[in-house]
Amino acid sequence: MTTWTASALLAEIAQIGRNDDGSYSRLCLQHDEVALREWFVAKATELGLTIVTDMNANIWAWWGQPGPHAVLTGSHLDSVPGGGAYDGPLGVICALVAVAQMKDAGVEPSKPFAVVVMADEEGARFGMPCLGSRLASGKLSKDGAHKLVARDGQPLPEAWRQAGLDPDLIGPDDAVLHASCFIELHVEQGRGLADLGRPVAIATAVRPHGRWRAEFTGQGNHAGTTLIPDRHDPVLPVAETILAARQAAEQAGCVTTVGRINVEPGGTNVIASAATMWLDCRAEEAQTVTMVVEGIQKTAHEAADKHGCHVVWTRESWTDRTAFDDGLRHRMLQVLGEDTPQLSTGAGHDAATLAATMPTGMLFVRNPTGASHCPAESASDEDCEAGAQALRAVVEELVK
Amino acid sequence: MTTWTASALLAEIAQIGRNDDGSYSRLCLQHDEVALREWFVAKATELGLTIVTDMNANIWAWWGQPGPHAVLTGSHLDSVPGGGAYDGPLGVICALVAVAQMKDAGVEPSKPFAVVVMADEEGARFGMPCLGSRLASGKLSKDGAHKLVARDGQPLPEAWRQAGLDPDLIGPDDAVLHASCFIELHVEQGRGLADLGRPVAIATAVRPHGRWRAEFTGQGNHAGTTLIPDRHDPVLPVAETILAARQAAEQAGCVTTVGRINVEPGGTNVIASAATMWLDCRAEEAQTVTMVVEGIQKTAHEAADKHGCHVVWTRESWTDRTAFDDGLRHRMLQVLGEDTPQLSTGAGHDAATLAATMPTGMLFVRNPTGASHCPAESASDEDCEAGAQALRAVVEELVK
Repeated sequence: MTTWTASALLAEIAQIGRNDDGSYSRLCLQHDEVALREWFVAKATELGLTIVTDMNANIWAWWGQPGPHAVLTGSHLDSVPGGGAYDGPLGVICALVAVAQMKDAGVEPSKPFAVVVMADEEGARFGMPCLGSRLASGKLSKDGAHKLVARDGQPLPEAWRQAGLDPDLIGPDDAVLHASCFIELHVEQGRGLADLGRPVAIATAVRPHGRWRAEFTGQGNHAGTTLIPDRHDPVLPVAETILAARQAAEQAGCVTTVGRINVEPGGTNVIASAATMWLDCRAEEAQTVTMVVEGIQKTAHEAADKHGCHVVWTRESWTDRTAFDDGLRHRMLQVLGEDTPQLSTGAGHDAATLAATMPTGMLFVRNPTGASHCPAESASDEDCEAGAQALRAVVEELVK
Repeated sequence: MTTWTASALLAEIAQIGRNDDGSYSRLCLQHDEVALREWFVAKATELGLTIVTDMNANIWAWWGQPGPHAVLTGSHLDSVPGGGAYDGPLGVICALVAVAQMKDAGVEPSKPFAVVVMADEEGARFGMPCLGSRLASGKLSKDGAHKLVARDGQPLPEAWRQAGLDPDLIGPDDAVLHASCFIELHVEQGRGLADLGRPVAIATAVRPHGRWRAEFTGQGNHAGTTLIPDRHDPVLPVAETILAARQAAEQAGCVTTVGRINVEPGGTNVIASAATMWLDCRAEEAQTVTMVVEGIQKTAHEAADKHGCHVVWTRESWTDRTAFDDGLRHRMLQVLGEDTPQLSTGAGHDAATLAATMPTGMLFVRNPTGASHCPAESASDEDCEAGAQALRAVVEELVK
């Protein structure tokens, strides 16, 4: 196992879920993400780890016996549609490399230890980010999960059954509730490390963020015969709301994104009867997000009224500002060096979702482009190995 | 056959391709439109008509022998997604009722006569309105047809073969090229007749209209970690272009519509890498359409530049102002009464596409809501029968 490297393992999965433009679409429990799960199980088995797929669709690879007070590391294998190669898999792969190297070095953990793959971290399939860690920690109930419907129309319980999982067993997981800590390694999603010229950072906090859905309804009609004053076209208030969202972000110094729009029925020569847009908003402080989204919603309602349309807003998810555990962060600084860079992030992570349940921490690996959720996301082979080494050093300390 | 009425025939197909909201989605050569074709063939066969499905996917039901100088009537069975019950089928059904009543009355046409069902009149499947009549009249070549791809991704030749048609035989149709005239009955797509309190009108002209596709490309990225100044988000210039299109229509007194938008990759937490919008524009005069669309394109390019994006415009279709045949119109006035209302329309039709090939004319049936391409489209049973009677009277005169 001495030949295991992060770059070699990344190469093994480089063709799975890859699109023609070099991006990846690996949606939770769909074909390609299932192939990655099978690959992970095979690699973990090769390392002598014991596999448990729990009823929340998370996969556990235990070193020895499962048990309480476990040290956990891992990340996710799913991607956004059109995402990069590293977001998710790098954390899983560095965990496998760390285990391989610890085994080679004859390390014997004195605590239960597991590598975990969390389900639908991106929320790209079921619309709920960090689905697996929310379920395992009890932040999302079984009833709440049963109501989720995949963007392809499949209800979550049906997707669960299709994957051989019993949706009635969804619920809080003792392995999570009684764990000692969770460390997640992740490719950086900005240029912090690139600007500092350093390969690895320790995370300080995740900025607050939420997702909203705005459903505008109007009246479908003929594009050629319906005079402008007779129209109730919901695409117009959507356009005004998109521009208002950008303006609000610029004014408040935060970020808003509309990356998903659905127009019904969607014919070139048909005035739409309905149009739905999704809004993502993140800021340094939760109150900024609230203020910005309230302003956007006000504009949306005014624009809908002006065009004889109706709009309904639904908050799909909310994650408050989450500081990672101070004790864990200081222990990582001791292991990796007190001068290790420390960065906050605007991206959500399972480690943030689990922070209310146990001490959690994160490591970031340099991303020269700073790009994320797109094919330009990158990390050099050397930096991936540096990440794996850092994770190994931290985990080895924690399982002592 | 004396019991054949338009409303009874409409009731026979009322469940085919019907959506939960009462609208219809009957896309050319897909399941439900194929079911309508089979229904039409059965009804026409019942009337003793001879069926010919040509290689342009149009269906011909001949009274007696096919031949040159034929009198043609008919319309289409396909709909836009989410369309109404009458747009298309009413013209086909009134033609069948007219034949049934002429047969009952012992009429013997002295010219070849056929009821025709034209393929993909809406262009909702293959993106080319009046596809069947364009192919039959040679306005669209076989090579041009072979390049068309359905919105579901299926290339036209494959769809043809799936329907048992040979795509290599696509081409101008002698039955159309040598026809005497074509009369199309259609539900009105505005409130002209409703305001006049009359059931049936004769069409004067179709106003010019075109369809354009604008493909904006930017750079996909993470919605949480990419700062606003670093973004190249193509959804923003799409929104600006949508609003510019509405403003341009208001200023020019014409109509513009954006009823179809596609955002890639389409994730809530992903800045889009590409966004495509389709523009439909119609006006009284062709030069107005040209001026309005040029203005919108200018705004689109400026908006794309401003957001670090790129835009490519493609004209998908163009139909010039089309006046229907004066001689035919006067003959219809003689048959139906000189006080019969005469209306122009902003909607395209096969009768307009064929107007360069032969004398064509249209009859409109009152639509109390004036709505079109949506479930609110309507026509009373009495008005449908009035339409069938008017069509019968006109056709009976033409086949003398």
